[in-house]
Amino acid sequence: MTGTKGASTRSAVLGHALALASEVGLEAVTIGTLAERAKMSKSGLFAHFASKEALQIAVLDEAVDRFVRDVVAPALREKRGEPRVRALLDRWLRWSNADYMPGGCVFVASIADLDDRTGPVRDRLADTQRDWLQTLTTAVQIAIDEGHFRADVDAKQLAHEILTLAYGTHLVSRLLRDRKAPTRLRVAFEGRLERARVPRH
Amino acid sequence: MTGTKGASTRSAVLGHALALASEVGLEAVTIGTLAERAKMSKSGLFAHFASKEALQIAVLDEAVDRFVRDVVAPALREKRGEPRVRALLDRWLRWSNADYMPGGCVFVASIADLDDRTGPVRDRLADTQRDWLQTLTTAVQIAIDEGHFRADVDAKQLAHEILTLAYGTHLVSRLLRDRKAPTRLRVAFEGRLERARVPRH
Repeated sequence: MTGTKGASTRSAVLGHALALASEVGLEAVTIGTLAERAKMSKSGLFAHFASKEALQIAVLDEAVDRFVRDVVAPALREKRGEPRVRALLDRWLRWSNADYMPGGCVFVASIADLDDRTGPVRDRLADTQRDWLQTLTTAVQIAIDEGHFRADVDAKQLAHEILTLAYGTHLVSRLLRDRKAPTRLRVAFEGRLERARVPRH
Repeated sequence: MTGTKGASTRSAVLGHALALASEVGLEAVTIGTLAERAKMSKSGLFAHFASKEALQIAVLDEAVDRFVRDVVAPALREKRGEPRVRALLDRWLRWSNADYMPGGCVFVASIADLDDRTGPVRDRLADTQRDWLQTLTTAVQIAIDEGHFRADVDAKQLAHEILTLAYGTHLVSRLLRDRKAPTRLRVAFEGRLERARVPRH
């Protein structure tokens, strides 16, 4: 019983931590700031997370679990090729507006603070982004193999463009409170896919 | 003499503050963190900046001065139209690697921390980005008017794509330490301009 209750408390606390990280960035999530947010004692939190680093890595793991559940897994159920590439963008857009991340995508919110640091949290964050870029690259490569995109499309390049358009749009639109941003991202994406799809000659 | 010396100290301090902000984000630049970085006393800094907010806004003003000097002004000396749009991207790439910002573009480094806040620092940062987007939009519009880009190009959309590709690339490449990132940005930019330039039919 205690074990189940402990696991359910941990899960609730991680939900608070993820919400907080989406607003202030992962680097600002500490036992102290989380205790305030989750209305728990610091000692209560130390029972679940031995250190700030352990907490931050647990938040990243939680974010990856939800990202796989809400973005990657649904896209993998779509038809191989262009439909799957589209599903990845659609699902990412929903992810970046998920109720459980009131400050938007936790990865975008955390990168700038961590990129100049060293250590396991930075490394883990970099791994999550390498995996996401690889997922996009594989989906684009499949679309090439299926004949949906031209054979001379550079899968890594196209994946890079989709990801950076999405991240750049997310970053700027949250600052400028630009409601047209998702539409701008979709128009950019459609234009880019059209170029991948239709032969130039 | 005291006035001149005071101005020159203030300028040197702002240089340290800009470098610090590029690494940790503007929101983490305080009288305390800057005192440590600039090897000055807090009271010495208070003589120049009355508050954390005043300091952060002074850093933004300093960044804008350098951005105008190193990005906007040189581009405005280029020929109207596509050459000026290209110059804006070229100069932005240099800006994002400037020696005086060891952590990269101070704007990209600061947006995620400030977007969920309210107050004059956030507002000033948003204004700088509105101005930059407007500068890009105007350059694209001139390229349309000059007949370099097609008449049906949406200047705001194209400016948004250039800016978000640049910001997204900067964000992700610093995390992944991806040396190919500037090349990927240039390839994306060339592809996008080609589409703006050449009629589809």
